[in-house]
Amino acid sequence: MLPTITVFERSPDEGRGLARDMRVRWALEEVGQPYAVRPVSFAEMKEPAYRARQPFGQIPSLEAGTLQLFESGAIVLHVADRWPGLLPADPDGRARAIAWVFAALNTLEPPIVEREMADYVEGHEAWHAARLPILGARIDTRLRELSRWLGAAEWLDGAFSAGDLLMVTVLQRLGDTGELERFPVLGTYVARAEARPAFRRAFEAQRATWLAGQATG
Amino acid sequence: MLPTITVFERSPDEGRGLARDMRVRWALEEVGQPYAVRPVSFAEMKEPAYRARQPFGQIPSLEAGTLQLFESGAIVLHVADRWPGLLPADPDGRARAIAWVFAALNTLEPPIVEREMADYVEGHEAWHAARLPILGARIDTRLRELSRWLGAAEWLDGAFSAGDLLMVTVLQRLGDTGELERFPVLGTYVARAEARPAFRRAFEAQRATWLAGQATG
Repeated sequence: MLPTITVFERSPDEGRGLARDMRVRWALEEVGQPYAVRPVSFAEMKEPAYRARQPFGQIPSLEAGTLQLFESGAIVLHVADRWPGLLPADPDGRARAIAWVFAALNTLEPPIVEREMADYVEGHEAWHAARLPILGARIDTRLRELSRWLGAAEWLDGAFSAGDLLMVTVLQRLGDTGELERFPVLGTYVARAEARPAFRRAFEAQRATWLAGQATG
Repeated sequence: MLPTITVFERSPDEGRGLARDMRVRWALEEVGQPYAVRPVSFAEMKEPAYRARQPFGQIPSLEAGTLQLFESGAIVLHVADRWPGLLPADPDGRARAIAWVFAALNTLEPPIVEREMADYVEGHEAWHAARLPILGARIDTRLRELSRWLGAAEWLDGAFSAGDLLMVTVLQRLGDTGELERFPVLGTYVARAEARPAFRRAFEAQRATWLAGQATG
């Protein structure tokens, strides 16, 4: 049986490829491993049967042989461990690529997701507008540091790795906020990653899942 | 030369063991690997020489032989990869323990850190009080899900692992908010981890670093 990942039946991003299954699809495409998807509804995600495999009721989860796994970062790292193409072979390079996996998910993503959350959780509050500059400044600090590190390099540390893959999916969440234009080093970096054939295939696949969900609506 | 980690010269938590070097100290104690520490000042952390090893100007970083590494999650995983004691030997168990590493740092930690940030970034704003229940509810959801998963088990997935170590350090940040009392399964879990001799040794060592910083002040 092919490795199978759970994905949104109806992604709230409407096929823009921002849901976290995209990371796993892209990783599997990079290593050339075919996979299957199982769309789940919002209701199913909160049921005990699903929570037995994903305790927090989120997508994606992975089923591969005897293994059931959750957390997109852990699944990407598992894919990178099992098939070559996403981590350097030398131990030091491997450890540094994994550092970028954590930097993407634990240093860059939290302030970016926090601003998204603010929009839909607190968007109606009178103080929402006052809070936005605070949130923006936190994101700016991290983007400036990342941009300074990347400089004229193609990828974060040598060859394209799981660290770049996750960092790019985090930066994509900035969408049309204009921040990637203000940090052209990062805009070019994201564009370079999006030009990879594996990314294109993963993007089209997630879009097809969304369109199928619409068709059955 | 011993593996060396950078730590706060004067930890803002005043020796309560909540800074992220504690995770790495604890991991090294669990695997029985002696280490050295290099205290750094807040000014030094923001200088180019330090940013060459930690692009975001944070602690901890690790120097071990030819390797320079950053991100506490990546360092703990490196320690767990290099010395036995923090990850199961069977591949499925290993992948699931790593899933809990990511769940701790990417699902539980962000809302908990967000509330800490709110206290010191927005604490003076008129709307801070209105925002606290929203932040509390987000944390509550995750604690309820985690508590339900853990149930009567001793650790998150079989034997104590790097996933438990990181999850406990994240839960410790709840401090005296009363939340661990409301989820007794989690309170007992944290107490069980804190009773481990390796935790005690790491805690005393970080406290000694803080006291030394005070003495030279």
